[in-house]
Amino acid sequence: MTDSTSASPKPVVLLRPAPQKRDRIFTPEALARLDAAFTVIDLEDAPDDALFEEHLQDAFAIVGQPDLDADRLTRATSLKALINVEGNFFPNVDYGTAFARGVRVLGCGSAYSQAVAEFSLGLALDLARGISGQDGAMRDGSEKYVSESAGDAILLHRAAVGILGYGNLGRSFHRLLQPFHTTVRIYDPWLPPAVIQETGGIPAGLEETLRSSQFLFVFATATADNAHLLDGTALDLLPDGARIILVSRAAVVDYDALLERLQQGRFLAAIDVWPTEPLPKDSPFRGLANTVLSPHRAGGIPQAFHSIGDMVVDDLTLMARGLPPVRLQAAAPELVGRYRNKPVT
Amino acid sequence: MTDSTSASPKPVVLLRPAPQKRDRIFTPEALARLDAAFTVIDLEDAPDDALFEEHLQDAFAIVGQPDLDADRLTRATSLKALINVEGNFFPNVDYGTAFARGVRVLGCGSAYSQAVAEFSLGLALDLARGISGQDGAMRDGSEKYVSESAGDAILLHRAAVGILGYGNLGRSFHRLLQPFHTTVRIYDPWLPPAVIQETGGIPAGLEETLRSSQFLFVFATATADNAHLLDGTALDLLPDGARIILVSRAAVVDYDALLERLQQGRFLAAIDVWPTEPLPKDSPFRGLANTVLSPHRAGGIPQAFHSIGDMVVDDLTLMARGLPPVRLQAAAPELVGRYRNKPVT
Amino acid sequence: MTDSTSASPKPVVLLRPAPQKRDRIFTPEALARLDAAFTVIDLEDAPDDALFEEHLQDAFAIVGQPDLDADRLTRATSLKALINVEGNFFPNVDYGTAFARGVRVLGCGSAYSQAVAEFSLGLALDLARGISGQDGAMRDGSEKYVSESAGDAILLHRAAVGILGYGNLGRSFHRLLQPFHTTVRIYDPWLPPAVIQETGGIPAGLEETLRSSQFLFVFATATADNAHLLDGTALDLLPDGARIILVSRAAVVDYDALLERLQQGRFLAAIDVWPTEPLPKDSPFRGLANTVLSPHRAGGIPQAFHSIGDMVVDDLTLMARGLPPVRLQAAAPELVGRYRNKPVT
Amino acid sequence: MTDSTSASPKPVVLLRPAPQKRDRIFTPEALARLDAAFTVIDLEDAPDDALFEEHLQDAFAIVGQPDLDADRLTRATSLKALINVEGNFFPNVDYGTAFARGVRVLGCGSAYSQAVAEFSLGLALDLARGISGQDGAMRDGSEKYVSESAGDAILLHRAAVGILGYGNLGRSFHRLLQPFHTTVRIYDPWLPPAVIQETGGIPAGLEETLRSSQFLFVFATATADNAHLLDGTALDLLPDGARIILVSRAAVVDYDALLERLQQGRFLAAIDVWPTEPLPKDSPFRGLANTVLSPHRAGGIPQAFHSIGDMVVDDLTLMARGLPPVRLQAAAPELVGRYRNKPVT
Repeated sequence: MTDSTSASPKPVVLLRPAPQKRDRIFTPEALARLDAAFTVIDLEDAPDDALFEEHLQDAFAIVGQPDLDADRLTRATSLKALINVEGNFFPNVDYGTAFARGVRVLGCGSAYSQAVAEFSLGLALDLARGISGQDGAMRDGSEKYVSESAGDAILLHRAAVGILGYGNLGRSFHRLLQPFHTTVRIYDPWLPPAVIQETGGIPAGLEETLRSSQFLFVFATATADNAHLLDGTALDLLPDGARIILVSRAAVVDYDALLERLQQGRFLAAIDVWPTEPLPKDSPFRGLANTVLSPHRAGGIPQAFHSIGDMVVDDLTLMARGLPPVRLQAAAPELVGRYRNKPVT
Repeated sequence: MTDSTSASPKPVVLLRPAPQKRDRIFTPEALARLDAAFTVIDLEDAPDDALFEEHLQDAFAIVGQPDLDADRLTRATSLKALINVEGNFFPNVDYGTAFARGVRVLGCGSAYSQAVAEFSLGLALDLARGISGQDGAMRDGSEKYVSESAGDAILLHRAAVGILGYGNLGRSFHRLLQPFHTTVRIYDPWLPPAVIQETGGIPAGLEETLRSSQFLFVFATATADNAHLLDGTALDLLPDGARIILVSRAAVVDYDALLERLQQGRFLAAIDVWPTEPLPKDSPFRGLANTVLSPHRAGGIPQAFHSIGDMVVDDLTLMARGLPPVRLQAAAPELVGRYRNKPVT
Repeated sequence: MTDSTSASPKPVVLLRPAPQKRDRIFTPEALARLDAAFTVIDLEDAPDDALFEEHLQDAFAIVGQPDLDADRLTRATSLKALINVEGNFFPNVDYGTAFARGVRVLGCGSAYSQAVAEFSLGLALDLARGISGQDGAMRDGSEKYVSESAGDAILLHRAAVGILGYGNLGRSFHRLLQPFHTTVRIYDPWLPPAVIQETGGIPAGLEETLRSSQFLFVFATATADNAHLLDGTALDLLPDGARIILVSRAAVVDYDALLERLQQGRFLAAIDVWPTEPLPKDSPFRGLANTVLSPHRAGGIPQAFHSIGDMVVDDLTLMARGLPPVRLQAAAPELVGRYRNKPVT
Repeated sequence: MTDSTSASPKPVVLLRPAPQKRDRIFTPEALARLDAAFTVIDLEDAPDDALFEEHLQDAFAIVGQPDLDADRLTRATSLKALINVEGNFFPNVDYGTAFARGVRVLGCGSAYSQAVAEFSLGLALDLARGISGQDGAMRDGSEKYVSESAGDAILLHRAAVGILGYGNLGRSFHRLLQPFHTTVRIYDPWLPPAVIQETGGIPAGLEETLRSSQFLFVFATATADNAHLLDGTALDLLPDGARIILVSRAAVVDYDALLERLQQGRFLAAIDVWPTEPLPKDSPFRGLANTVLSPHRAGGIPQAFHSIGDMVVDDLTLMARGLPPVRLQAAAPELVGRYRNKPVT
């Protein structure tokens, strides 16, 4: 279980984290570790591509998502890793060529998972109990004490929960439910039932999941296939008084249909993602009661950003030792072209 | 593991739930179960004590907390159970006589535990992430997107947590922390360390708990001894930026000292209990940022109230079979005179 | 949350642990703590009752289970606690008088729970996988490698589990199942369904539990009502190839019926308790294959014994402060006369 | 979240599972699912390579580990997946060419994880409590009852645990420890500390892990670098009375040094893997007391074998839909040449 570390020149890392910022994702400690083990070419403030082109041939790794067509990749003869630090894979990279050349294409999506999971649980408990609503009421003096404002409050304990999408986010969130003894139905068309059963969940179709859920958590990535998965017809399957927690992604929901049903009081919702951000000032969502409104805050917290940098340094260190990366996630060649998430700006 | 059920006349239950209400604690199903197995004398609307006195001698159980001096208890020669359905034991009962006569004195405090635990977790996640603050901001159009308003957001995952008071509430809450891999220090002067260690907690003194906690949960019942346990000196031990979640009881905190430190931005707080309720309209707490304000809503939700009725029927049914109660909690003779909690009105 | 400790003379504790031994249940540290806070009258080697009688009137607590009729209890005017350190309540005490006089009657049954739970899980995994059988085979050179001897091996993961009896033992064991994602049916006629549901179990009748369980754990205390609860008719309900783990109590099983079915290969069993102990040398159980045989070893390990002493000292210390005990268990007046467990000799 | 399934001819799967057997890894249901979606060329009984060569060009997937040099891989122009169903990657495949051609190289190692984890826990509880030893004693009439044979029995609850190797096996096992409130130190030189911390473990060096562990679990795969990692010097670091559970791999332990210390009674061990298997009949290990002996039975049980087949069918089905596999594990190009595990014969 040992390995030899070479005494040869330090491998070159091209650092071009935009639209991320270097100092948001790397703590000083992480940067120091990176500098100690690698020759870091910091391109954050580079005025043009000259420096990038100069070092491309020697690059062991590229951190960030610069344009990488087949020509550039072919010239990057030392390249072992291409590390996306933003969370979404965009089509400015010729992924096929990267894979064929044995370049590890790595993503940092899991860095946000715990933050999103905790935020989602917070939204759910807020919706279950009216926390932000009564906080607002206390600020204008209209609060109601004890059980007067708790007529529709419910427990998460032993509730029927539905999860749409069981990737990093869904799994991290599911773990937080463990002490609540909930029944958890999970819909994910990219997964065989066994993956869900092994974690204690119940694999279910979309319709069954919607019909059965007191709490519905939407963690589906946006793809070419699932636009408006939750349209009016789907939303009408939810039981009265259901709680919808919508953190990812806006594209899978028909917001007009959602608004209409929230205005009718059919169910409650906590919404963190919006079809256009910022949400227009005159959006009718802003006046809804029994709704928790959130400006896309589920994932982007300092600990999540810093974990990206830590993951990058940890995995580059492993790769420089000839070991596989273990913290970042390998992009699936089958999926890397399917996502339709927009970059966060 | 079987038992014989007598065919004799049904035992008499005197039902006088004030200040609770019969229909808040008993679902129709629970009332039906109660009526099927017992002769229920419903005193909720009784104009005076005549009916109570008439049936006292035959009563198998009294549900509620009517005045019960030694004389009344001595006349209640069939009495086996006195069941408090409000949550606090008051001194209008001669508990010593009840214990000496072999009357089970039972309380329903655990009915609220899950509700309080979930609410406390909701408050903590709100404080950690600013959920209600940004919900308010979205309603007035001042929200900030993604990381712009998340500079001080933190994870609960692997955080240092302190719990003051490890009774029903503290234990129910602690269970919810299990998936977060937190370090949990617990201060409870009524408990030996082993009780805390067995649950994975770290027994700690008050000072160590305060000094070490990023999240501090106050679940201490009010006693003659712990008034203003959290005074200014104690609060000053907390680390900068700590999150205080205060759900029980107001008497243990010096609110003037708390207010001063919140105004200075020393830490954040979610507050559900208040020295006087309703909180005065002009209370400076109402204008605090970085604070979640809540009008005493942690426990009193429909499921908690209904569980009281279910517990009463379950335990009376067991006792009528000659078995001990298992859902309500036996009052401790040593403590029943110590509590200083006020009734919720 | 503070309390005053009196400076008055130390309370008197009569220590007469037979059939336990003082030094088995008290570590030196525990004895030192006890001596520091109490005047301990050690009666372990007392030749007669003289010393006991001499100190009875002043006794704050009695540790052990000496004969205590109404007369003795009436003379024990300072007595606050009677602490059974053996694990079973016997009829040599007038419990009614003790309760009426406000004496806490405390038992140590929970001291064995973790030991029994872990041992039961060990037996179940042994039965599931044939561990002790192949250990024996390796000792005589008849072992079979890899899958050759694993044809009937099964996982506990996601198995159907039944638990008979949900007291201390059953609950401690149930907690150990949490990571296995099992379906757990629980039969306990002394408990309402809600107690079981709250822990994630499924309340079930005896017949359903037997019919459905791949693993059946017997944790039922012996009572006047449940002798031979598992007779031939009941055992015939089990599915072929079921695994029975029998740790408490022998009286609830018809061993002749059990033997017959084990000889037929109907199911497998791990047996820790026996109708007569030691088991006769010529017992046909000794030759059974696919059975794990154990000489009543589930609970009595050093850590369990020492925890009794620790619990005694912890709770006496609390009681001397005027606080209720929290580690030992209060005997239920309704049950204390029902048990039929025999003392372990 | 939908996808289109092509109506084109069924993809071709070459099935050559040796040294596995088709009917050991595929249940009839799994085979039926495979046949329904794929054209399966069953080569299990093929006398020579003719049939294999005939279909190589059309093969969508190869299940098994036939010789695959660069020439063969180059001719397999439709190949998308090479699925190892034995558990170890051998050098008869030109993995570099496979990766370069975009062929998914998949392994089934995780199929055994739960079986190994449960077996390891069973061994640990046996060692902690002497289960198989006393089972043997009951068979020859030398058993000792209750505490007479439990003088060195210990709990797993709150014990200090060490884990060497934190791959599939170590992680599956670690999950089973969750209810025991253990302190878990983990040594794995291929992992950065954060991977271990996120699961609640304590990353530790080899020496610290050995010095601190009452229970030591060896789950390390054999590599060119870790032969005799546990030599006499390392074993001497263990505390007296430690329990060693050795399930993977024999090559990492110096068995002579282990034997010597077991004979001296320095610690206890449960051993499932051996330098040569079968273990020689006259091996002195066979006579050791306080040792649990096991003939390489940790993983190879029917449910584990069947899960291989289920994983193969699940993942091939996903890949035929254009989705990535999610149940089998992608081989790491960096590691596929490093392993030194021997095939199980």
